[in-house]
This record gives sequence, C-alpha cells and structure tokens, in this order.
Amino acid sequence: MKLIRFGSVGQEKTGVIIGEDYYDTSSFGEDYNEAFLQNDGLNRLQKFVDANKGSLPKISKDVRLGSPLARPSKIICIGLNYADHAKETGAATPKEPIVFFKSTTALIGPNDDVVIPKNSTKTDWEVELAVVIGKKATYVVESEAMDYVAGYCLHNDLSEREFQLERGGQWVKGKSCDTFAPLGPFLVTKDEIAEVNNLRLWLTLNGQTMQDGTTANLIFNVPFLVSYLSQFMTLLPGDVISTGTPAGVGLGMKPAVYLKAGDVVELGIDGLGTQKQNVKNWAKG
Amino acid sequence: MKLIRFGSVGQEKTGVIIGEDYYDTSSFGEDYNEAFLQNDGLNRLQKFVDANKGSLPKISKDVRLGSPLARPSKIICIGLNYADHAKETGAATPKEPIVFFKSTTALIGPNDDVVIPKNSTKTDWEVELAVVIGKKATYVVESEAMDYVAGYCLHNDLSEREFQLERGGQWVKGKSCDTFAPLGPFLVTKDEIAEVNNLRLWLTLNGQTMQDGTTANLIFNVPFLVSYLSQFMTLLPGDVISTGTPAGVGLGMKPAVYLKAGDVVELGIDGLGTQKQNVKNWAKG
Repeated sequence: MKLIRFGSVGQEKTGVIIGEDYYDTSSFGEDYNEAFLQNDGLNRLQKFVDANKGSLPKISKDVRLGSPLARPSKIICIGLNYADHAKETGAATPKEPIVFFKSTTALIGPNDDVVIPKNSTKTDWEVELAVVIGKKATYVVESEAMDYVAGYCLHNDLSEREFQLERGGQWVKGKSCDTFAPLGPFLVTKDEIAEVNNLRLWLTLNGQTMQDGTTANLIFNVPFLVSYLSQFMTLLPGDVISTGTPAGVGLGMKPAVYLKAGDVVELGIDGLGTQKQNVKNWAKG
Repeated sequence: MKLIRFGSVGQEKTGVIIGEDYYDTSSFGEDYNEAFLQNDGLNRLQKFVDANKGSLPKISKDVRLGSPLARPSKIICIGLNYADHAKETGAATPKEPIVFFKSTTALIGPNDDVVIPKNSTKTDWEVELAVVIGKKATYVVESEAMDYVAGYCLHNDLSEREFQLERGGQWVKGKSCDTFAPLGPFLVTKDEIAEVNNLRLWLTLNGQTMQDGTTANLIFNVPFLVSYLSQFMTLLPGDVISTGTPAGVGLGMKPAVYLKAGDVVELGIDGLGTQKQNVKNWAKG
C-alpha cells in the first residue's frame, strides 16, 4: 500500500495510490499518525480500501502532497552511514551508528520549496532512505527488528554545514531549519519493498547527477539500526529513522557546492518515488 | 499560576496549585499541551480558575504527579552552560550554546522512579532550569525573547555517560533513555518568577549535596537561548529548553560516582518546587 497526505499546508487529507491513481481516503476518518499506526491502522486501512475501492474519490495528480505522515514524535538521523560519504567529508568510518535528531518542525511535503535559512551560506542536500516505525520498540533484537517497521519513505535530509559543523558542538543546529525535511511522496508499506537493503538512490541538482548510490552500501542496515536505536530510546509508531546518505553531497565537492535560490533539486529511491524541490531564499513571512 | 498534571501514567488529569493546595481543573476540558498554549490557554485557564475557585475539586497531595506538560514537540538541551560544570568535565567553555535533543519518550513525573538502562554503568544526574515556550518562535530577537516564554519547570536531565561520550558521535544516545527526563512538579508561569537568571538550584544524592548553584552563573541566559535557538529551528508552544547544569555531576567526581539501584535523588530550584526519585535497575517489563 502507498499512503499519501494531500491538500494545503496544515490541512492535509489522507489518501492512497492505487496503480497510477490517487484516491481520497479521508472518509476513513483517521490521520496517518502515531495512533493510526499503533492501532493496526495499516491493516484496517487496507480492508477499508478493499471494501470501498469503487467509491473512493479520485484526486488530481496535480494536488500538493504533504508529508505522508503527520508529525511524528521524533526524526532520528544516522550520520556517515555510507563509507564513500564518510570519506568525502574527511571523517572516519564510524564503529557504531552516529545518531542525531532533526526537529519535526522541519517536515514538509516532497515537492514543497526548500528555503535557505537566514544567514546561511552552506545549505546542502542528502538523499536518504527513511524507515517508519510501526509499533513501540524498546530493546528489540535484530532478528525481530523488521516486525517493528511499518514502511519506508524518501527523505531529503537537508543540512546547513556551517550551522552543523562550525558553530560548536552537536549537529542538530544544522539539521533542524524549517523545510529541511521533505518527506514522501508516499509511505510505502514494507511488503511492497522486496529488499530494502538493495535500493538505488540518486539526487540531481539542476539536472546534473550529484548522488547515485545503493542501500546495499549502508554500513549499518535497517534491522541493525532499529535494534540499535531501541537500546538507547523507545521508538514510537510513526517515528522516522533516516538512514544516512551516500557520497555526492555539496560539502564533499572540491570546491564545495551549496544550494542557492533558483536551484532545482530532484531525488528518488527505487520503489519510493521521487521528489522535486525549488530552492528559495528566506524572506520575512 | 502553577499548573500540574496528576493521576496514573498516561491518564493524567490537569490541575493547579493555589496556595498550598492542589485542585482538579479537568472540567476546563483541555490538556496542557501545544494547542492549549497556542490558543492563549494560560489566560483562559486563569479566568476559569478565578471564576470557579470555590467549586474546583481539591486533590490529595499524595497523588502521583505526571509531567506538568503533555508531550511536547521537542526537548532541547543546552550543554556545558555553567563554567564550573564545563571545567569539571574537562571541556572548554563553549563560545556558542551547545545544543542537543532528548527524546520526548524520556519524560516522566517529578517523583517517578528513575530506571538505570539495560547495560548502563554510568547513569548520572543533572539539575536544570527548563524553559517552556508559550508561542511559536522563529528568528526572535533577544529583546523580545521573553514574550515567547510561558514559564518554567524543574528538570533532572539524566545522562548515561558511556552512551553519551564513549559510543561514537553525538550526545543524544546518552540522553534519551526512558525515565531520563523527570519534569515538574509544576509549570510555573513566568509572572511568578521575578528573576529567572538568579535562582538557586541544588541536588542531593542519598541526602548528600552534590550540586548547589545559581542560574546567575549561566553562560548563556534564558532570553539569549530562546533567541539563539530560534535562529536554527522553529520553537513551538510547549517545547522545553533545558538550560544546562552547574558543577557537581557524577562524571565530575574523582573518582566518578554513578547512580545505582536504591539511590535516592532529590533536587530543587527556588520557586520551581522539588523532585525526589528512587533509582531502580532495568527489568523486563
């Protein structure tokens, strides 16, 4: 199943994609959030869709898509989880996952504008596979970790490298700006992805390929990460784990390349759809 | 006004403290959460309490208190924000605030048990002044920052030092374990605290004073922090900013002292009440 949320910002309705078409499921009566996932929402939604397939309103594919998930309790990101990316940033390959959070206020739809923050000169891109937690997870063993996964989303883990690396201490400052977490276009349930640890992921800037990798090169793969994180914190349904980015970010270029107004970023992962963002400068709203 | 939430875990009702007594305000019909604060809840609650003072049900002071805030969008912590604490940990005094997040799943009531995580040998305490945001804040200037503050809470920013410092990368791994964020006993509105940057804060372990400081020694004070953070992320109503801890944590002792089952931690801040936690080992629930 492919779940979408569509409509104006903050007023998103729920939907599903069947074949090539978008359908409105708002008559199901629940947003795609923690409570939905906690209460077996994916199975209940599937039954609802099967029972009502003939009568669900079809939506124009020109509709704005929002994040396919309502605001989760946390967005957890993994740093330097591809050896080629660790190398391009000059960092050592990590012995254990590097973990940081991104403010959930950064979430936007997959094709919304990315805004370069005020005082930013080093806004950068990162195509990532995001894992969505399906049920509460604490001290989960790796062999059972996939039971706690609901599905996957495409995520652009935007980063401000000066804020992240040159302003003292921890990375969260460079990861949490508004518009820094385009998510979607859809949440795909795990049954539709045969091998999550073998997906191509790519990103272009103004049509030029910058990143082209595969999740087969993840240093720490999906079940390992779910198990690992659950040793340090409780994962809740809807929580997002963004698994890191392959080589090809702006920071790694010689000389470095950062986003500027007018740029167009496109990215995709096999089976998870594509995103396209226009880049704008911050302006007093 | 002093706001409390009371009752069993996950089923907390709202209340207020008037003088020495606790009153049930659940007939007000709103939890103390983001929407409450966003929609002028503090003023509306004050009017409700004034109008119904004679008829509000009085609660036993033996009741369990929960976190005085329902789960916020984020708990933001400031590292090494007292010079004496930076020194005891061997770190340099930061030039800019060090910022990290704590998982909101760590939140518990002020007198709930603290659980030493599985595989932990270095669980430590940190008495901290927590600031609660009252309205959405983005790019706020320091001179107006206090307009965005709803009030304050006492917070024990528990930390697992091995997870935080010896397991690679960022601090969040050592800050996010379940029970690592006792908050309360109450949220006090800012009008009741004459000078937030001059409050005594203290912590005892088994009756022995470990921390005894004053917020006058904050390197970065409350309005500065609100303004600073709002340059990097949007702060939402209910968001918690924990402002750092003075000297006297277990990591700073020679030799280091960490929590063990049976320990009793008590802490307090002038005008913000006190907490008392019994420490237990993790056990399969």
